[in-house]
Amino acid sequence: MLSGHRTWVFENRPVITSTGVVVGPFEGNGRLSDDFDTIHEDLWCGQDSYEKAQKKLFEDATLKALDKAGKKPDDVQFVFAGDLSNQITSTSFACRTLAIPYFGLFGACSTSMEGLAMAAFVMNYQGAEYILTGSVSHNAVVEKTFRYPTEYGSQKPPTSQWTVTGSGMALLSQGGAGPVVTSATIGKVIDLGMSDPFNMGGAMAPAAVDTITAHLKERNITADYYDLIITGDLGKIGRSIALDLFKQQGTEIDVDRFQDCGLLIYRDDQPVFAGASGSGCSAAVTYGHFLNRMKRGELTRILVVATGALLSPLTFQQNESIPCIAHAVSIEAGGNNSQ
Amino acid sequence: MLSGHRTWVFENRPVITSTGVVVGPFEGNGRLSDDFDTIHEDLWCGQDSYEKAQKKLFEDATLKALDKAGKKPDDVQFVFAGDLSNQITSTSFACRTLAIPYFGLFGACSTSMEGLAMAAFVMNYQGAEYILTGSVSHNAVVEKTFRYPTEYGSQKPPTSQWTVTGSGMALLSQGGAGPVVTSATIGKVIDLGMSDPFNMGGAMAPAAVDTITAHLKERNITADYYDLIITGDLGKIGRSIALDLFKQQGTEIDVDRFQDCGLLIYRDDQPVFAGASGSGCSAAVTYGHFLNRMKRGELTRILVVATGALLSPLTFQQNESIPCIAHAVSIEAGGNNSQ
Repeated sequence: MLSGHRTWVFENRPVITSTGVVVGPFEGNGRLSDDFDTIHEDLWCGQDSYEKAQKKLFEDATLKALDKAGKKPDDVQFVFAGDLSNQITSTSFACRTLAIPYFGLFGACSTSMEGLAMAAFVMNYQGAEYILTGSVSHNAVVEKTFRYPTEYGSQKPPTSQWTVTGSGMALLSQGGAGPVVTSATIGKVIDLGMSDPFNMGGAMAPAAVDTITAHLKERNITADYYDLIITGDLGKIGRSIALDLFKQQGTEIDVDRFQDCGLLIYRDDQPVFAGASGSGCSAAVTYGHFLNRMKRGELTRILVVATGALLSPLTFQQNESIPCIAHAVSIEAGGNNSQ
Repeated sequence: MLSGHRTWVFENRPVITSTGVVVGPFEGNGRLSDDFDTIHEDLWCGQDSYEKAQKKLFEDATLKALDKAGKKPDDVQFVFAGDLSNQITSTSFACRTLAIPYFGLFGACSTSMEGLAMAAFVMNYQGAEYILTGSVSHNAVVEKTFRYPTEYGSQKPPTSQWTVTGSGMALLSQGGAGPVVTSATIGKVIDLGMSDPFNMGGAMAPAAVDTITAHLKERNITADYYDLIITGDLGKIGRSIALDLFKQQGTEIDVDRFQDCGLLIYRDDQPVFAGASGSGCSAAVTYGHFLNRMKRGELTRILVVATGALLSPLTFQQNESIPCIAHAVSIEAGGNNSQ
């Protein structure tokens, strides 16, 4: 149901039946290692290129989610997914392996919630029995795509963020036990003129604030409706700017309840500059950490706001600023709502 | 409604209220020039880079579709769109201008029907009042992205195809006059091991055949249900391979009713090798030419099967084969089905 201009409310409460989260070694040494299903011990994930490693992460996370639900790829109608590579080839190549009908998405680091919003809409209207959705990123692939190959060892400023090596996938169904998807607010492209590709968090903060503000207004709720409002990868600087923007516009939001996946996944002594980023960041932290906390009864309602910077190296070279977007999806503890 | 494994039937028959099609000069000299709303006289479209020209084509087509329906960007809930550029920046930058909530898609040249399938599903369940969907490509941008800058003047083999400079956009609504979207079949990623990026049509043919076969089976119809089955950009070689594959598997399909957007847009004396391609090809030919023919009463039911090659220059360099996909959407003459 359309509520307001750009918010869907899912009356039939599609269920996140299972999730699969697979990460690299650096993430395995981070703060949330207990929340991941598989931790690869080397960055190559047993493959002979980083691109194939990125594909492997996606495939592994998908098969893990299916396995937990006792399902096979053939049981699934659709995949809604994407990544940050040029032409999202890792996701497309993984979907070749999986042989599941496939909607390719590109929302940069907002892809996880772009996919969950779309998948939940389809599931809410019985457009599928099972849908897989999620995203992947690999540090070495994304750094090479957007900045420099990691082998160069180029220096980065303190505003930069560390791309997560990891994939988070969710298997949705119409009923059964598990957290439920209750609403989604789709982002507009917001660009306040920032152009520094080493400060993505700062560029993305206004998009996150715009989407959260629209969500609260269109659902007619206040921020304390949620136990947590969780942004994707604003990092330290982006989160701080977002809090300033909320204050300026008079939106009350509890600082402790406004969290960021990019500030949770690594330990404080890991050298990640302003925090984590990458399209796998919000996917892995949401489908790993936060849904585990929800299953343990620690969280009842969360709003996940995945943030994406829609630039390319070419647009940066052409002196364009960085347009950004954020998609918000609310997830609630579902109990057993079998139909 | 899910019909079979990967086909949606849209009982509420979402309406294509209006379309906007804007092309470049080479397309303006082609066979379908009367079907386009705007023909740019130079390839730069008044911009100082080809990338900005690609963005302009998208914006112009969108504004043209809105204008014909007497609507403004603010009236539209969602855009479902994408292009072939790295990180689909032309589409994202255009959506910054339009300020409409935005789902970024990547399906290579299948994006037009990927978007129409999703938009029609959302519209079928009243998830929006108005949705814009479509795609864009620009010859010089796509050649530079996938092969060589056109300024190099590099030679191409006869199997290669010519990327369309153009954008086709459709405005969907729940009721009113216009052609209606009646069903969609979502493609699987199919890869029979072809690896020549100068023969995309040949690589994509099996994906088109797979999706068309699934569509006919899951809707329990034969190919002659449609006046035309129209592939996106198989070109001469791909179309010929597709017809062979249909014959091999015993699917009856009338050769004259199996058409290809990539073989229609240019005149025979234009030097386009095996035909046209590009994500703007199926969008411009469908939303321009075929919907005009439908409005004139020449066509009642068509199945548009947009085909995409999901490679990148990097996957080619890494000796990968070319995974392909095709999404099919049926469009029927609607009359006035105001609700």
